[in-house]
Amino acid sequence: MDMERVNSMGFGEFVDVFGNIIEKCPLVAAAVWSQRPFSDSEDLENHFFAFIDALPRSGQEGILRCHPDLAGRDLHQGTLTAESQREQSQAGLTSLDADDQLRLQKLNALYRERFGFPFVLAARLSDRDTVLRELARRLHCQPELELHTALGEVKKIGHLRLADLLGADPARVE
Amino acid sequence: MDMERVNSMGFGEFVDVFGNIIEKCPLVAAAVWSQRPFSDSEDLENHFFAFIDALPRSGQEGILRCHPDLAGRDLHQGTLTAESQREQSQAGLTSLDADDQLRLQKLNALYRERFGFPFVLAARLSDRDTVLRELARRLHCQPELELHTALGEVKKIGHLRLADLLGADPARVE
Repeated sequence: MDMERVNSMGFGEFVDVFGNIIEKCPLVAAAVWSQRPFSDSEDLENHFFAFIDALPRSGQEGILRCHPDLAGRDLHQGTLTAESQREQSQAGLTSLDADDQLRLQKLNALYRERFGFPFVLAARLSDRDTVLRELARRLHCQPELELHTALGEVKKIGHLRLADLLGADPARVE
Repeated sequence: MDMERVNSMGFGEFVDVFGNIIEKCPLVAAAVWSQRPFSDSEDLENHFFAFIDALPRSGQEGILRCHPDLAGRDLHQGTLTAESQREQSQAGLTSLDADDQLRLQKLNALYRERFGFPFVLAARLSDRDTVLRELARRLHCQPELELHTALGEVKKIGHLRLADLLGADPARVE
Protein backbone atom coordinates (compact mmCIF):
# COMPACT_ATOMS: atom_id res chain seq x y z
CA MET A 1 0.00 0.00 0.00
CA ASP A 2 1.57 3.32 -1.02
CA MET A 3 1.08 6.69 0.69
CA GLU A 4 -1.01 8.07 -2.16
CA ARG A 5 -3.51 5.32 -1.40
CA VAL A 6 -3.34 6.05 2.35
CA ASN A 7 -3.80 9.78 1.80
CA SER A 8 -6.89 9.17 -0.34
CA MET A 9 -8.75 7.33 2.44
CA GLY A 10 -11.83 8.79 4.11
CA PHE A 11 -11.75 8.57 7.90
CA GLY A 12 -13.98 5.49 7.96
CA GLU A 13 -11.63 3.43 5.81
CA PHE A 14 -8.56 4.87 7.57
CA VAL A 15 -9.86 3.76 10.97
CA ASP A 16 -10.86 0.36 9.55
CA VAL A 17 -7.32 -0.16 8.26
CA PHE A 18 -5.19 1.51 10.96
CA GLY A 19 -7.53 1.34 13.98
CA ASN A 20 -5.50 -1.34 15.75
CA ILE A 21 -1.99 0.03 15.15
CA ILE A 22 -2.37 0.97 18.81
CA GLU A 23 -4.08 -2.02 20.44
CA LYS A 24 -7.83 -1.45 20.96
CA CYS A 25 -7.36 2.33 20.61
CA PRO A 26 -8.94 3.29 17.25
CA LEU A 27 -9.18 6.79 18.74
CA VAL A 28 -5.48 7.26 17.97
CA ALA A 29 -5.84 6.41 14.27
CA ALA A 30 -9.03 8.47 14.14
CA ALA A 31 -7.11 11.45 15.53
CA VAL A 32 -4.09 10.93 13.27
CA TRP A 33 -6.34 11.14 10.17
CA SER A 34 -6.61 14.89 10.92
CA GLN A 35 -2.89 15.24 10.10
CA ARG A 36 -3.05 13.90 6.49
CA PRO A 37 -1.49 14.04 3.97
CA PHE A 38 1.44 11.93 5.15
CA SER A 39 4.73 12.12 3.25
CA ASP A 40 5.83 8.53 3.96
CA SER A 41 5.36 5.67 6.42
CA GLU A 42 7.76 7.23 8.93
CA ASP A 43 5.78 10.46 8.86
CA LEU A 44 2.54 8.53 9.42
CA GLU A 45 4.13 6.58 12.27
CA ASN A 46 5.47 9.73 13.88
CA HIS A 47 1.95 11.15 14.07
CA PHE A 48 0.76 8.04 15.92
CA PHE A 49 3.66 8.34 18.36
CA ALA A 50 3.29 12.10 18.81
CA PHE A 51 -0.35 11.62 19.77
CA ILE A 52 0.65 9.13 22.47
CA ASP A 53 3.44 11.38 23.74
CA ALA A 54 1.05 14.34 24.01
CA LEU A 55 -1.46 12.46 26.19
CA PRO A 56 -1.58 13.18 29.91
CA ARG A 57 -0.06 10.43 32.03
CA SER A 58 -3.51 8.92 32.71
CA GLY A 59 -4.05 8.60 28.95
CA GLN A 60 -0.65 6.96 28.42
CA GLU A 61 -1.43 4.50 31.21
CA GLY A 62 -4.86 4.06 29.59
CA ILE A 63 -3.24 2.95 26.33
CA LEU A 64 -1.26 0.32 28.23
CA ARG A 65 -4.44 -0.84 30.03
CA CYS A 66 -6.06 -1.55 26.64
CA HIS A 67 -3.40 -4.24 26.02
CA PRO A 68 -4.01 -7.88 26.96
CA ASP A 69 -1.79 -9.83 29.32
CA LEU A 70 0.75 -11.98 27.50
CA ALA A 71 -0.56 -15.57 27.61
CA GLY A 72 -3.46 -14.28 29.73
CA ARG A 73 -7.24 -14.40 29.86
CA ASP A 74 -7.89 -13.14 26.31
CA LEU A 75 -5.55 -15.72 24.80
CA HIS A 76 -7.25 -18.54 26.70
CA GLN A 77 -10.75 -17.29 25.91
CA GLY A 78 -9.94 -16.70 22.24
CA THR A 79 -10.77 -12.99 22.53
CA LEU A 80 -7.41 -11.54 21.48
CA THR A 81 -7.35 -9.15 18.52
CA ALA A 82 -6.04 -10.82 15.34
CA GLU A 83 -2.81 -8.84 15.64
CA SER A 84 -2.18 -9.86 19.28
CA GLN A 85 -3.00 -13.48 18.54
CA ARG A 86 -0.40 -13.57 15.80
CA GLU A 87 2.25 -11.78 17.87
CA GLN A 88 1.79 -13.96 20.96
CA SER A 89 1.82 -17.06 18.80
CA GLN A 90 5.09 -16.01 17.12
CA ALA A 91 6.70 -15.62 20.56
CA GLY A 92 5.65 -19.17 21.49
CA LEU A 93 3.21 -17.93 24.15
CA THR A 94 0.33 -20.01 22.79
CA SER A 95 2.13 -23.26 23.57
CA LEU A 96 3.63 -22.78 27.05
CA ASP A 97 3.94 -25.77 29.37
CA ALA A 98 2.03 -25.66 32.66
CA ASP A 99 5.01 -24.45 34.72
CA ASP A 100 5.84 -21.52 32.44
CA GLN A 101 2.15 -20.68 32.19
CA LEU A 102 1.82 -20.51 35.97
CA ARG A 103 5.03 -18.51 36.35
CA LEU A 104 3.89 -15.99 33.74
CA GLN A 105 0.48 -15.65 35.39
CA LYS A 106 2.05 -14.90 38.77
CA LEU A 107 4.53 -12.39 37.37
CA ASN A 108 1.80 -10.67 35.30
CA ALA A 109 -0.33 -10.30 38.44
CA LEU A 110 2.58 -8.86 40.46
CA TYR A 111 3.37 -6.45 37.63
CA ARG A 112 -0.26 -5.24 37.30
CA GLU A 113 -0.44 -4.77 41.07
CA ARG A 114 2.79 -2.76 41.17
CA PHE A 115 2.27 -0.49 38.13
CA GLY A 116 -1.50 -0.35 37.54
CA PHE A 117 -1.21 -1.52 33.94
CA PRO A 118 -0.37 -4.85 32.24
CA PHE A 119 3.10 -5.93 31.16
CA VAL A 120 3.46 -4.88 27.51
CA LEU A 121 6.25 -6.15 25.29
CA ALA A 122 6.65 -6.44 21.51
CA ALA A 123 6.21 -10.21 21.51
CA ARG A 124 7.23 -10.61 17.86
CA LEU A 125 10.73 -9.43 18.75
CA SER A 126 10.89 -11.92 21.60
CA ASP A 127 10.51 -15.55 22.63
CA ARG A 128 9.28 -17.42 25.70
CA ASP A 129 12.51 -17.17 27.67
CA THR A 130 13.00 -13.49 26.89
CA VAL A 131 9.41 -12.67 27.86
CA LEU A 132 9.83 -14.33 31.26
CA ARG A 133 13.25 -12.77 31.84
CA GLU A 134 12.13 -9.28 30.80
CA LEU A 135 9.00 -9.47 32.92
CA ALA A 136 11.01 -10.52 35.99
CA ARG A 137 13.50 -7.70 35.35
CA ARG A 138 11.04 -4.89 34.62
CA LEU A 139 8.96 -5.82 37.67
CA HIS A 140 11.67 -4.15 39.77
CA CYS A 141 12.04 -0.94 37.74
CA GLN A 142 10.94 2.44 39.02
CA PRO A 143 7.37 3.37 37.91
CA GLU A 144 8.45 6.44 35.87
CA LEU A 145 11.07 4.46 33.97
CA GLU A 146 8.70 1.53 33.52
CA LEU A 147 5.96 3.71 32.01
CA HIS A 148 8.54 5.00 29.54
CA THR A 149 9.77 1.47 28.73
CA ALA A 150 6.23 0.14 28.26
CA LEU A 151 5.26 3.00 25.91
CA GLY A 152 8.43 2.24 23.94
CA GLU A 153 7.13 -1.31 23.50
CA VAL A 154 3.73 0.05 22.35
CA LYS A 155 5.63 1.99 19.68
CA LYS A 156 7.63 -1.08 18.59
CA ILE A 157 4.37 -3.01 18.25
CA GLY A 158 2.81 -0.14 16.30
CA HIS A 159 5.85 0.13 14.02
CA LEU A 160 5.67 -3.57 13.17
CA ARG A 161 1.90 -3.46 12.58
CA LEU A 162 2.30 -0.45 10.28
CA ALA A 163 5.11 -2.20 8.41
CA ASP A 164 2.80 -5.19 7.85
CA LEU A 165 0.17 -2.93 6.33
CA LEU A 166 2.48 -0.66 4.32
CA GLY A 167 5.13 -3.16 3.32
CA ALA A 168 7.85 -1.01 4.93
CA ASP A 169 11.08 -2.31 6.42
CA PRO A 170 10.33 -3.77 9.88
CA ALA A 171 14.02 -4.08 10.82
CA ARG A 172 14.54 -0.55 12.12
CA VAL A 173 13.33 -1.17 15.67
CA GLU A 174 15.00 -4.54 16.27
CA MET B 1 -24.06 -0.54 41.27
CA ASP B 2 -22.75 1.71 44.07
CA MET B 3 -19.53 3.71 44.03
CA GLU B 4 -17.86 1.48 46.61
CA ARG B 5 -18.22 -1.35 44.11
CA VAL B 6 -16.91 0.84 41.28
CA ASN B 7 -13.93 2.00 43.35
CA SER B 8 -13.02 -1.60 44.18
CA MET B 9 -12.60 -2.60 40.51
CA GLY B 10 -9.22 -3.44 39.03
CA PHE B 11 -8.54 -1.76 35.69
CA GLY B 12 -9.47 -4.87 33.71
CA GLU B 13 -12.97 -5.05 35.15
CA PHE B 14 -13.36 -1.25 35.04
CA VAL B 15 -12.60 -1.20 31.30
CA ASP B 16 -14.88 -4.20 30.73
CA VAL B 17 -17.76 -2.36 32.43
CA PHE B 18 -17.16 1.28 31.38
CA GLY B 19 -15.15 0.81 28.17
CA ASN B 20 -18.00 1.90 25.89
CA ILE B 21 -19.25 4.92 27.86
CA ILE B 22 -17.46 6.75 25.07
CA GLU B 23 -18.27 4.80 21.89
CA LYS B 24 -15.41 2.47 20.84
CA CYS B 25 -12.95 4.45 22.97
CA PRO B 26 -12.04 2.17 25.91
CA LEU B 27 -8.91 4.31 26.20
CA VAL B 28 -11.01 6.97 27.93
CA ALA B 29 -12.29 4.60 30.64
CA ALA B 30 -8.80 3.10 30.93
CA ALA B 31 -7.41 6.59 31.57
CA VAL B 32 -10.20 7.58 33.98
CA TRP B 33 -9.38 4.56 36.20
CA SER B 34 -6.21 6.47 37.20
CA GLN B 35 -8.44 9.05 38.94
CA ARG B 36 -10.18 6.65 41.38
CA PRO B 37 -11.63 6.74 43.99
CA PHE B 38 -14.75 8.50 42.70
CA SER B 39 -17.07 10.20 45.18
CA ASP B 40 -20.28 9.65 43.19
CA SER B 41 -21.57 9.09 39.66
CA GLU B 42 -21.27 12.78 38.78
CA ASP B 43 -17.63 12.78 39.87
CA LEU B 44 -16.98 9.68 37.73
CA GLU B 45 -18.76 11.27 34.77
CA ASN B 46 -16.82 14.51 35.16
CA HIS B 47 -13.54 12.61 34.82
CA PHE B 48 -14.72 11.10 31.52
CA PHE B 49 -15.69 14.54 30.24
CA ALA B 50 -12.53 16.24 31.52
CA PHE B 51 -10.42 13.71 29.62
CA ILE B 52 -12.28 14.53 26.39
CA ASP B 53 -12.01 18.27 27.00
CA ALA B 54 -8.24 17.99 27.56
CA LEU B 55 -7.60 16.21 24.24
CA PRO B 56 -6.12 18.18 21.36
CA ARG B 57 -8.62 19.01 18.63
CA SER B 58 -7.49 16.01 16.54
CA GLY B 59 -8.28 13.73 19.49
CA GLN B 60 -11.72 15.27 19.99
CA GLU B 61 -12.44 14.81 16.29
CA GLY B 62 -11.06 11.27 16.67
CA ILE B 63 -13.64 10.48 19.34
CA LEU B 64 -16.39 11.60 16.95
CA ARG B 65 -14.90 9.48 14.14
CA CYS B 66 -15.24 6.37 16.34
CA HIS B 67 -19.03 6.83 16.26
CA PRO B 68 -21.19 5.08 13.63
CA ASP B 69 -23.46 6.92 11.23
CA LEU B 70 -27.07 6.99 12.41
CA ALA B 71 -28.95 4.37 10.35
CA GLY B 72 -25.70 3.76 8.45
CA ARG B 73 -23.44 0.91 7.41
CA ASP B 74 -22.92 -0.61 10.87
CA LEU B 75 -26.65 -0.76 11.53
CA HIS B 76 -27.29 -2.49 8.20
CA GLN B 77 -24.37 -4.90 8.63
CA GLY B 78 -25.29 -5.70 12.23
CA THR B 79 -21.93 -4.44 13.50
CA LEU B 80 -23.15 -1.70 15.85
CA THR B 81 -22.08 -1.89 19.50
CA ALA B 82 -24.90 -3.16 21.75
CA GLU B 83 -25.33 0.35 23.17
CA SER B 84 -25.62 2.01 19.74
CA GLN B 85 -28.01 -0.66 18.51
CA ARG B 86 -30.32 0.00 21.43
CA GLU B 87 -30.11 3.79 21.10
CA GLN B 88 -30.73 3.85 17.35
CA SER B 89 -33.60 1.42 17.79
CA GLN B 90 -35.22 3.60 20.47
CA ALA B 91 -35.12 6.57 18.08
CA GLY B 92 -36.92 4.55 15.39
CA LEU B 93 -33.84 4.51 13.13
CA THR B 94 -33.96 0.73 12.65
CA SER B 95 -37.36 0.92 10.92
CA LEU B 96 -37.07 3.88 8.51
CA ASP B 97 -38.95 3.77 5.24
CA ALA B 98 -36.92 3.88 2.02
CA ASP B 99 -37.37 7.64 1.49
CA ASP B 100 -36.21 8.61 4.99
CA GLN B 101 -33.38 6.10 4.72
CA LEU B 102 -32.14 7.66 1.50
CA ARG B 103 -32.52 11.20 2.83
CA LEU B 104 -30.54 10.33 5.96
CA GLN B 105 -27.80 8.68 3.90
CA LYS B 106 -27.41 11.74 1.70
CA LEU B 107 -27.37 14.17 4.64
CA ASN B 108 -24.88 11.98 6.55
CA ALA B 109 -22.56 11.98 3.54
CA LEU B 110 -22.78 15.78 3.16
CA TYR B 111 -22.12 16.21 6.88
CA ARG B 112 -19.06 13.90 6.86
CA GLU B 113 -17.70 15.70 3.82
CA ARG B 114 -18.13 19.12 5.41
CA PHE B 115 -16.83 18.42 8.92
CA GLY B 116 -14.56 15.36 8.62
CA PHE B 117 -16.47 13.39 11.24
CA PRO B 118 -19.88 11.68 11.36
CA PHE B 119 -23.08 13.30 12.61
CA VAL B 120 -23.38 12.39 16.30
CA LEU B 121 -26.58 12.87 18.28
CA ALA B 122 -27.93 11.30 21.47
CA ALA B 123 -30.51 9.18 19.63
CA ARG B 124 -32.29 8.10 22.81
CA LEU B 125 -33.36 11.69 23.42
CA SER B 126 -34.65 11.96 19.87
CA ASP B 127 -36.91 10.42 17.22
CA ARG B 128 -36.83 10.02 13.46
CA ASP B 129 -38.15 13.50 12.64
CA THR B 130 -35.86 15.24 15.12
CA VAL B 131 -32.82 13.36 13.81
CA LEU B 132 -33.51 14.46 10.24
CA ARG B 133 -34.30 18.03 11.26
CA GLU B 134 -31.23 18.37 13.49
CA LEU B 135 -28.95 16.89 10.84
CA ALA B 136 -30.26 19.31 8.21
CA ARG B 137 -29.81 22.22 10.65
CA ARG B 138 -26.35 21.34 11.98
CA LEU B 139 -25.04 20.75 8.46
CA HIS B 140 -24.96 24.53 8.06
CA CYS B 141 -23.25 25.39 11.35
CA GLN B 142 -19.72 26.72 11.56
CA PRO B 143 -17.09 23.98 12.09
CA GLU B 144 -15.92 25.29 15.50
CA LEU B 145 -19.47 25.46 16.84
CA GLU B 146 -20.35 22.10 15.33
CA LEU B 147 -17.37 20.37 16.97
CA HIS B 148 -18.56 21.78 20.30
CA THR B 149 -22.17 20.68 19.66
CA ALA B 150 -21.11 17.18 18.61
CA LEU B 151 -18.93 16.71 21.71
CA GLY B 152 -21.91 17.83 23.79
CA GLU B 153 -23.89 14.97 22.23
CA VAL B 154 -21.06 12.53 23.05
CA LYS B 155 -21.38 13.65 26.67
CA LYS B 156 -25.17 13.22 26.67
CA ILE B 157 -24.72 9.69 25.30
CA GLY B 158 -22.06 8.98 27.93
CA HIS B 159 -24.27 10.34 30.71
CA LEU B 160 -27.15 8.06 29.70
CA ARG B 161 -24.89 5.02 29.36
CA LEU B 162 -23.40 5.68 32.81
CA ALA B 163 -26.89 6.12 34.27
CA ASP B 164 -27.84 2.72 32.82
CA LEU B 165 -24.89 1.09 34.56
CA LEU B 166 -25.07 2.96 37.84
CA GLY B 167 -28.81 3.33 38.20
CA ALA B 168 -28.46 7.12 38.47
CA ASP B 169 -31.04 9.66 37.38
CA PRO B 170 -30.90 9.98 33.57
CA ALA B 171 -33.16 13.07 33.51
CA ARG B 172 -30.49 15.69 34.11
CA VAL B 173 -29.45 16.12 30.48
CA GLU B 174 -32.86 15.95 28.86
